[in-house]
Amino acid sequence: MAITLDQARTIIRAARDKGHELGLKPLSVAVLDAGGNLLAFEREDGAAPGRFAIAHGKAYGAVMLGMPGSAQMARAEAQPYFMAAVNGVYGGQVIPVPGGVLVRDGAGAVIGAVGVTGDTSDNDAAAALAGIAAAELAGEG
Amino acid sequence: MAITLDQARTIIRAARDKGHELGLKPLSVAVLDAGGNLLAFEREDGAAPGRFAIAHGKAYGAVMLGMPGSAQMARAEAQPYFMAAVNGVYGGQVIPVPGGVLVRDGAGAVIGAVGVTGDTSDNDAAAALAGIAAAELAGEG
Amino acid sequence: MAITLDQARTIIRAARDKGHELGLKPLSVAVLDAGGNLLAFEREDGAAPGRFAIAHGKAYGAVMLGMPGSAQMARAEAQPYFMAAVNGVYGGQVIPVPGGVLVRDGAGAVIGAVGVTGDTSDNDAAAALAGIAAAELAGEG
Amino acid sequence: MAITLDQARTIIRAARDKGHELGLKPLSVAVLDAGGNLLAFEREDGAAPGRFAIAHGKAYGAVMLGMPGSAQMARAEAQPYFMAAVNGVYGGQVIPVPGGVLVRDGAGAVIGAVGVTGDTSDNDAAAALAGIAAAELAGEG
Repeated sequence: MAITLDQARTIIRAARDKGHELGLKPLSVAVLDAGGNLLAFEREDGAAPGRFAIAHGKAYGAVMLGMPGSAQMARAEAQPYFMAAVNGVYGGQVIPVPGGVLVRDGAGAVIGAVGVTGDTSDNDAAAALAGIAAAELAGEG
Repeated sequence: MAITLDQARTIIRAARDKGHELGLKPLSVAVLDAGGNLLAFEREDGAAPGRFAIAHGKAYGAVMLGMPGSAQMARAEAQPYFMAAVNGVYGGQVIPVPGGVLVRDGAGAVIGAVGVTGDTSDNDAAAALAGIAAAELAGEG
Repeated sequence: MAITLDQARTIIRAARDKGHELGLKPLSVAVLDAGGNLLAFEREDGAAPGRFAIAHGKAYGAVMLGMPGSAQMARAEAQPYFMAAVNGVYGGQVIPVPGGVLVRDGAGAVIGAVGVTGDTSDNDAAAALAGIAAAELAGEG
Repeated sequence: MAITLDQARTIIRAARDKGHELGLKPLSVAVLDAGGNLLAFEREDGAAPGRFAIAHGKAYGAVMLGMPGSAQMARAEAQPYFMAAVNGVYGGQVIPVPGGVLVRDGAGAVIGAVGVTGDTSDNDAAAALAGIAAAELAGEG
């Protein structure tokens, strides 16, 4: 099973709605497929111009490692040289903090990841989870 | 004046609609702001996974050079070493063919670019122009 | 549908057998999934040490562009600056010649690609196609 | 003496068998030659898509430095700036943790390395050592 573009659009729409509901700063939301390739992205008005790379980096690390941002952050705290090295082999594209959330299908298989950036990392993750839930998929943040 | 996210979404929606109307292959559409940074992107179901880099590269070259894809292609035909060198200074991120379309405001200022990929380069450009027109902005393909 | 490791191993085994049967030089065979990520690889004794990058590059370009090596080569002959630019956006990882073969499932969806290198490009492609056929999948070379 | 492809395949087969026997998560196994070039690789079904880069990085650091992952980790703990600098000169390709295991011939010469990833670093190393032993070679983990 793959994330469709319609599902990706639903995820982005609902993550942004969650941000508005919670009064968060402008969010940027990236949805990647199971191979780590970009499906869809939106950056809200008022967000800093470089936010795509951050949103992408949160989602990319999650899907390539099969590990959400919270787990990557724990590993980075315990073994900073390990996550630095991981970034080396992935071309510097990994942002190991919350806001990178795995997307699983009904059988539990990872089918992609969502990266959200703009507010605190925990709020970013909450918005990502809300988006994934709205698409009736399971998120692991 | 800047392209808003709502305008970027309109551009993508209308470019995709044009593709469906013309019976084109699945399209991928990127919208960049005046600084060459990503605002929004969508990849249609059935498109190859690497399409973001192509769509982005068409739009990025257009906005960074202030020159649409058609003009870049003419320059590449006449002076291939020039466009190769341009790609050197832009980190290899430029795809110099039609489908990279400048977006101008009412005063003629470049406020961003749209990159479309998936069908022939000329059809890609036609879809980009239709998207920009739907947002009531001026496109130069 | 995804290529399983067992299928990837069958593809490699049968591609190598085809090479032996045709008396080809030592082959190297890479199998990538639908997202362009490596599933399996083997380099035969006597092959040059750098063959992984060639085999990977043939398969990677095919899956990321949704275009087999033969079609990439035709495009490179017609528009060399285009394939050079494509390589820029894909980090220099594309080898646009025969031997990069798309793998499709029964419904025609691209589920990965095989890259073979070691002999002539056409013989490399023949070995890849034999491998894919042995796994009861459809190849497009 | 060089690792043959048959030996590399035996290493991978036995490392995977060890993983199954111990109930480990899906493993990915890379075998590199004495020059640091890839001989063979397999990623088990269910492993995250980016596992090749991690498995390769564990083996690559081991063979290029002549130092197994456990020794690299000790050095990274003591002098993080040293391993960061090592990664600079090796193009960011080194993952300095257990699971990168040197392969030695009967005379003690390094003839390659094995990188395993998927479970804990120590379990990864145990699987690599089991694989190397099955090929009747000596491993240093």
